[in-house]
Amino acid sequence: MRIPILKLHDYLLISIQVELDDQTAIQFQQDLLEKIHETGVKGAVIDLTSVDMIDSYIAKILGDVVKMSSLLGTKVVLTGIRPAVAITLIDLGITLKDVPTALDLEKGLEKLQQELEG
Amino acid sequence: MRIPILKLHDYLLISIQVELDDQTAIQFQQDLLEKIHETGVKGAVIDLTSVDMIDSYIAKILGDVVKMSSLLGTKVVLTGIRPAVAITLIDLGITLKDVPTALDLEKGLEKLQQELEG
Repeated sequence: MRIPILKLHDYLLISIQVELDDQTAIQFQQDLLEKIHETGVKGAVIDLTSVDMIDSYIAKILGDVVKMSSLLGTKVVLTGIRPAVAITLIDLGITLKDVPTALDLEKGLEKLQQELEG
Repeated sequence: MRIPILKLHDYLLISIQVELDDQTAIQFQQDLLEKIHETGVKGAVIDLTSVDMIDSYIAKILGDVVKMSSLLGTKVVLTGIRPAVAITLIDLGITLKDVPTALDLEKGLEKLQQELEG
């Protein structure tokens, strides 16, 4: 299955509402990069509010897609990381450094707008 | 599988990017109504840009969800109906009357904002 990517004005919005298995995550990485290339948006927000668990492999893919998008010229913010997910990530030694995060979708969009204007 | 529903400010955004089978459509109808009830949003946009085909049953479910949401007090706009889908709907005798439509997600949001303010 594929994760839907919405385009709204200059941004892509993605809400991940399934448990990410490896195959879905890889497919999503490709789809997002294709969509960025195709639409030429300035930024994207990936909302993880509905994700209950992230393992180290999925965390790596998410971290990578932020860096890959940056190479294409598009800033990506991760939002809605749940407390349990944050605990797991830190316990696993994954800090997602250099990956911008925000509390929710709205705040993620604000952050993008600020960074792109500033 | 479930269709993700994004909340952005006072609106819900839904982009349907799978072929809708009957089960998915019914599940989506329930999920959307639950989400409207839970969030109390003023409006919702359902974007069908990625939907290549709609049969009469799916069209009925989509038309119904607009009317059901209206009962809950939330206005729903359908956007991005593709030419082939429009042809099929009219050929099937389905006019989706009383269902507001717009060209794309951005225009759908504008339409909602205008109607809710006006």
